[in-house]
Amino acid sequence: MHASKYHINTLKEAPAEAEVKSHQLMTRAGMIRKAAGGIYTYMPLGLKVLRKIEGIVREEMNRAGAIELLMPVVQPAELWMESGRWEQYGAELLRIKDRHQRDFVLQPTSEEVITDIARNEIHSWRQLPLNFYHIQTKFRDERRPRFGLMRGREFTMKDAYSFDRDEASAQASYDAMFQAYMRIFERLGLEFRAVAADTGSIGGSRSHEFQVIADTGEDLVVYNPASQYAANIELAEAPCLIAERAAPAQALTKTATPDAPKCELVAEQLGLPLARTVKSIVLATDDPEGKQQARIWLLLLRGDHELNEVKTGKLPGFENGYRFATEAEILETFGCVPGYLGPVDTAKPVSVIADLTVAHMSDFVCGANEEGYHYTGVNWGRDLPEPAKADLRNVVSGDPDPQGGVLAIQRGIEVGHVFFLGDKYSKALNATFLETDGKPAVLQMGCYGIGISRIAAAAIEQNHDDKGIIWPRAIAPFEAVICPMNLHKSETVRNVAEKLYQELQASGVDVMLDDRDIRPGIMFADWELIGAPLRITIGDRGLKDGIVEIQTRRQAAADKIPVEQALEFSLQQLKSL
Amino acid sequence: MHASKYHINTLKEAPAEAEVKSHQLMTRAGMIRKAAGGIYTYMPLGLKVLRKIEGIVREEMNRAGAIELLMPVVQPAELWMESGRWEQYGAELLRIKDRHQRDFVLQPTSEEVITDIARNEIHSWRQLPLNFYHIQTKFRDERRPRFGLMRGREFTMKDAYSFDRDEASAQASYDAMFQAYMRIFERLGLEFRAVAADTGSIGGSRSHEFQVIADTGEDLVVYNPASQYAANIELAEAPCLIAERAAPAQALTKTATPDAPKCELVAEQLGLPLARTVKSIVLATDDPEGKQQARIWLLLLRGDHELNEVKTGKLPGFENGYRFATEAEILETFGCVPGYLGPVDTAKPVSVIADLTVAHMSDFVCGANEEGYHYTGVNWGRDLPEPAKADLRNVVSGDPDPQGGVLAIQRGIEVGHVFFLGDKYSKALNATFLETDGKPAVLQMGCYGIGISRIAAAAIEQNHDDKGIIWPRAIAPFEAVICPMNLHKSETVRNVAEKLYQELQASGVDVMLDDRDIRPGIMFADWELIGAPLRITIGDRGLKDGIVEIQTRRQAAADKIPVEQALEFSLQQLKSL
Repeated sequence: MHASKYHINTLKEAPAEAEVKSHQLMTRAGMIRKAAGGIYTYMPLGLKVLRKIEGIVREEMNRAGAIELLMPVVQPAELWMESGRWEQYGAELLRIKDRHQRDFVLQPTSEEVITDIARNEIHSWRQLPLNFYHIQTKFRDERRPRFGLMRGREFTMKDAYSFDRDEASAQASYDAMFQAYMRIFERLGLEFRAVAADTGSIGGSRSHEFQVIADTGEDLVVYNPASQYAANIELAEAPCLIAERAAPAQALTKTATPDAPKCELVAEQLGLPLARTVKSIVLATDDPEGKQQARIWLLLLRGDHELNEVKTGKLPGFENGYRFATEAEILETFGCVPGYLGPVDTAKPVSVIADLTVAHMSDFVCGANEEGYHYTGVNWGRDLPEPAKADLRNVVSGDPDPQGGVLAIQRGIEVGHVFFLGDKYSKALNATFLETDGKPAVLQMGCYGIGISRIAAAAIEQNHDDKGIIWPRAIAPFEAVICPMNLHKSETVRNVAEKLYQELQASGVDVMLDDRDIRPGIMFADWELIGAPLRITIGDRGLKDGIVEIQTRRQAAADKIPVEQALEFSLQQLKSL
Repeated sequence: MHASKYHINTLKEAPAEAEVKSHQLMTRAGMIRKAAGGIYTYMPLGLKVLRKIEGIVREEMNRAGAIELLMPVVQPAELWMESGRWEQYGAELLRIKDRHQRDFVLQPTSEEVITDIARNEIHSWRQLPLNFYHIQTKFRDERRPRFGLMRGREFTMKDAYSFDRDEASAQASYDAMFQAYMRIFERLGLEFRAVAADTGSIGGSRSHEFQVIADTGEDLVVYNPASQYAANIELAEAPCLIAERAAPAQALTKTATPDAPKCELVAEQLGLPLARTVKSIVLATDDPEGKQQARIWLLLLRGDHELNEVKTGKLPGFENGYRFATEAEILETFGCVPGYLGPVDTAKPVSVIADLTVAHMSDFVCGANEEGYHYTGVNWGRDLPEPAKADLRNVVSGDPDPQGGVLAIQRGIEVGHVFFLGDKYSKALNATFLETDGKPAVLQMGCYGIGISRIAAAAIEQNHDDKGIIWPRAIAPFEAVICPMNLHKSETVRNVAEKLYQELQASGVDVMLDDRDIRPGIMFADWELIGAPLRITIGDRGLKDGIVEIQTRRQAAADKIPVEQALEFSLQQLKSL
């Protein structure tokens, strides 16, 4: 490609609303343009990245035996009613009406449509296993779309759906997809981690996320550098940090702690480590039929720990959801305002659940249910009954891994997610096949998503510097750029540049020759911003000595290479990228 | 690809609602499955066809210098309000609201979004000409979607948009696209015709449609077999069939024509040729401000001719649309019920427009504005004033071409359309650039659409037989299929089939090896239905004599070819397809 026949339009400034690097850089590099909140046009350079990601995903899906089809963007509501998600999905599901006032959705995902296809297409065990996928435009009506392609409303996703005879075979399909995903992210050239994850609104019994490691990631990944273990913090088991509870050493004492409604302030006032305090979190679970009063729960965490809301949602009694208690409910139950609550002497009985670590603490500090007062020297069994206990907290860096070693935490961007669905959708839609015995059996399913457009953003979050994007070679819009100096004035430069361009193309390199009549500084800045992995600079000065300059995007200075070795050196460098 | 690892699911019966061959055959061949009215899933075989069409379109668009980008499916209403099409487009434009009750549309086409991009991206004449295109999901909320992919609601379209400095340059861009389209449809292997066409709701001053010739087409293409002339009947000029008006020979006579409210019946009763009668069509144009009464028009056509509604819409005075007059309006104006109307002795004055041929008729027959009566021997100038005249009718086969020769008519399916837009959208959205003199000038635009999914259907309408589809090689889901007989029992057959499969693949042929354990008759029927251009049958019986059978889809019987020549012969045959 010659730049004069292409559209390159870089911007000095990112839009004010662009909070993250990928949004800023993709906009400045002219890769995306906003059409509406969370809705973008992929400009030519951006689309090239998207297509390269799609290409790798498609190749590996095909290699893994998945079969591509294409389901529609606009899907009939009936199927979503059959699965129950028409009611469950919430406002992110964009519901629309056609001219005849019939209900449709813009697909955020396609479990319903593919299960409908499966129940019509799959008749016999002989057809199984089957894995269908498509790469299609998705829509999720995010309340507050932002971060560019990281959290857009319209986006491109690859979603695959496997159908199997039984759980063992479905597990094999799941494993095959897991391996395909590993290959995909390796080929994309990204630093990533496959982590055990929560199944969320998709459902199913097991799942893994593929997280691109980046400081700006919204997810926290817990991993053990010494082992294969990795899990999303939502799911990662937080161990009990106290092997055995020590015997009480202090008396239960009510202590004045004025203006200390937080553990940090209490610890400071009492001159104690934060790890000696216990924080009280009051939750409520409503009766789904709305007949009984909400049940009030007191969850106890060590002062330096944080509540894990996903784990909380899985506690017995929390099946229908939970919420934070209102101030009125707190006052009624504890007889005290928030900030000084605790499990001792509550105004009314309350269901107490202690985090595993809290359950092994002794002589600890907690609110006294009286404004401005805390208890010190609190001990289970002596001052209050033994609590129900559960893993309630987020892992923190340095927690021991029960399997040995120490846990660490990284930030990640979720770009892929594989789910073992079992019969969640196939049962709801009655998708069955005839087993060898001639009897109908319910299909076992898995589903497997990859955020194509999100990967582009994640790659940038992971790979950029002050000057711009540093694309991995596999997904760069152009792998190499030739920057000729004064091409419009120097025939020598023009000829050398054109020859090398032809040679690189013939060698299969996706190369750009920047033949725009612009100053070298501007041209260099453009390609540093756009992030071409390899730049070849050709000028009269170098050519006098038979030299061209070749520089990878991460190199600080160029290598001076004899003209006749430029092709080979460039190919060599590209191989290393 | 091996069939056992693919998904092939043919059906004996087409759905009852499938009225046209392409809908029936694509469903029976397992290429599409209905998700909702006018909304389909492309099954693996169907998607392969779609992708091959896309591939050819993309290559030729790139070759013509167009640059690919990707505009969103969901587009903000604001832009459609700016262009005025939010009001004008009608119910086919699916309007949706997001969770914040903001208005959006599902794009049926992207003039607005691309013009918005152009006004932001194009600053200087130096950037011009530019041509952007995308291949994207479109939605048109047809009142009555039918005919499968021929008239679907969700479909895939390639739409390109050119931007130029002035009309001459814009015309060059238009011509380049015209030529690219010619190459595209040639490469697709379809019999087609580029025809001058009306611009319809897209607007602009000039346009051509690309029509795939097929008996089931909805469009009528007027062409001259002896010249390059071709036009959609909507636009094709219908000549005056009477060079000079003859002098009156008959007296004006009121004749009883009981129960003859149609020209055919009048001609029969009077024993005259239909071409001697004149039919009266009463139209009304409403005052756009609703202040004045509707104006009533009487359009006169020869009895054997048909009104052309597109030409009618372009008559002076019809700028704001027209409608057929109501019975009350007719009674009031003519003092007579429909069926016996004419231009002589109307109850009230009426604006008469005669078709060019009618204006040259003499001694003709028309209604007498009295139930059960017609006039014979009517003559312009003598019995009524000379009429305003215009081309009001559809061309009929056999009409003379004013440039020489005789016009013929074919049915066609519109699969492409190129428009010279001028400044229609750029002016509305104020898309300007700086000219050499530093002053802003309005961009000149063209737009160029190709219905990717519709081409698949049109190809079938043109190419099928009793057994199924006959794909042109370029867009067949598989170019060749190897049908081994009893592959599961015969190692010889298996080995020969696998070897040929590998060789064909290595030669770049998209080949399927049907290794399903099914009866030969079923296998053959499947591939005749699916429409593989070349079939290679390998069986023990033939192999005994060193023979395999090779048959193109159009051949009645197979060629018996020595095994060792099978590869070369197959490649040769494919070249001819």
